[in-house]
Parts: sequence; C-alpha cells; structure tokens
Amino acid sequence: MSVTDEYLANNAEYASTFHGPLPLPPSRHVAVVACMDARLNVYRILGLADGEAHVIRNAGGVVTDDEIRSLAISQRLLGTREIILIHHTDCGMLTFTDDEFKRAIQDDTGVKPNWAAEAFPDVEQDVRQSLRRIEASPFVTKHESARGFVFDVATGRLNEVFLRRD
Amino acid sequence: MSVTDEYLANNAEYASTFHGPLPLPPSRHVAVVACMDARLNVYRILGLADGEAHVIRNAGGVVTDDEIRSLAISQRLLGTREIILIHHTDCGMLTFTDDEFKRAIQDDTGVKPNWAAEAFPDVEQDVRQSLRRIEASPFVTKHESARGFVFDVATGRLNEVFLRRD
Repeated sequence: MSVTDEYLANNAEYASTFHGPLPLPPSRHVAVVACMDARLNVYRILGLADGEAHVIRNAGGVVTDDEIRSLAISQRLLGTREIILIHHTDCGMLTFTDDEFKRAIQDDTGVKPNWAAEAFPDVEQDVRQSLRRIEASPFVTKHESARGFVFDVATGRLNEVFLRRD
Repeated sequence: MSVTDEYLANNAEYASTFHGPLPLPPSRHVAVVACMDARLNVYRILGLADGEAHVIRNAGGVVTDDEIRSLAISQRLLGTREIILIHHTDCGMLTFTDDEFKRAIQDDTGVKPNWAAEAFPDVEQDVRQSLRRIEASPFVTKHESARGFVFDVATGRLNEVFLRRD
C-alpha cells in the first residue's frame, strides 16, 4: 500500500463528517506565500480556518512569476488584501547553490534547467528580497499590507522581518 | 488590528505548546501539488501530520516551471518519491480566460503580463495535462507514483482522475 493510498483512506474518513461547500472567495481576504517545507503547517501556525485565506507554496517560499500570477489572481479576482510571506529556519534552500544544483541535473540528465533554482544563503535577506519582488511587480498592487516572517522550526514562532535596504 | 495581527496572536498561542524541531526531509516521502483555494486544507483533507510531506500550491494547482523547480528540489535533494496533484470543483480558474484576465490587467496598468494565467475550462482535463507536464519534464523523474485528483468542495472527497488521452 502506497502512502498515497493511506492518505486516500484518511480522506474517506474526512469526507464522512464534512460539511460544505464554503464560498469561493477567502473570507479573511488574506494570501499566504510560504515554503513547501514539511514542518510548516500554515493552518496550525497561523490558526487559519477553512475558507479564510489563499495558500501559495513552493521551494523556499520565494516569489517567481508563478507566485506573481497566483497573487494577481488572488487579489484581482478574489479580493485578497493582505499578504503574509513565510520563510523558515533550517531551510533546504540554504544547503546548496543554484550552480551546483543545475550542474548536478545536467550531469545526470544531459539537460540544464532554464530556470533559477532560487537557493539563498541568508533567510532574512531572502524574505526582504522576496517582498521587494512583490513591490516591484506591476501586477500585484491591490494589497494594503505585505509582511514577511521567518518561522523558527525549533520554537514554532514567526519572527517578523522588516523591510530595509541591505 | 489587521487580520495578519490576529494570525500572529494565534501563532504566539501555537508556539506556547510547540515541540520541535522535526527533521528536514519529509518523513513519508510525498510531495503534494494543490490549488491555493481557501477551502482546500490539504493537511486535514489527506490527514497529513507535521513533517510528512512537501506542500506546493498555486492558483489552480497547475504545473509551471516553478512547480517543476520545487518538485526537482523535493525529489533530488529531499528524497520524495510520490506526487499527489489536487485540483478541485468550483475553482476560480474555471471562471475566466487568459485573454480576458491579461486584457483587464493591461487596461488597468498599461502592462500585459508576460506569463500565462493558466485558466482552464475543464478541471479533470487540466489534472491530466498537469500530470503530463510532469511526465514531460526531464527534471522530475525520481517518483514511483504521480496521481491526480479533483477535490469536491461540496462533499470533502478526493476523486481520482486517471491519465488517458483526451
């Protein structure tokens, strides 16, 4: 039995007591952008209830064209007005460089990725530059607030990173 | 008080009973790719516990270069071996077209996005083509399983979409 099959059995149990549907637009008008890390359950970390917020996640919690696309749809079509960006301590993105990672893929497959791996050596600095990528986008402009945090995987606490030049 | 501030107060409560850290690599070797929709709490839907699985999310749960990047890092550096792809009923991506969305942004800002909005008219068909984008990538090749599902927001149930030509 695969892990996927185990999770499908969990889903059958979940559905047995499910009450829905909730409305499509996020009721608290929030979009979260966070790392895909397995220890970062944004629902529990933020106390999010079902239906409240969009949740956008990727390796690192970085802001590429796809997060700009998702945030543009979130704001312009579904009315979100606050952005919460979350990176975290002990992140895998701190453990390699783009050059190394792309070289390893090329050595293995003969093909070099035509995208950046988005590794970073400093998590707080990358929160700042990710917030600045949002600031710099002409397509994500409807928010009243965009704040960045580092989640501490040892303490469970979100520590805010304030935007300043570095 | 902003919603972000309310969520930070929830986080302080969460941290007060937190026990960590868990290890970095996902303990069940699974990567989930899902829509950002506010009603799709993948932890509860799948019964995921902390530390078990990577969670990658965006508008639609589609597969663009950024999901390929995240999956490549997930598999090659952190050892995941199963992919679970989740779209859902009543998705916002069914309610517009790329041309309309990009025209509205251009009318508003004077700039046309240089990315696809990734809207789709048929959710099951888009699960299939998203699985095929994974199949077609030379960079995401380490998985033993990649299965796609539509989450029903009315019943809470995941319905599998099987890959066939359409």
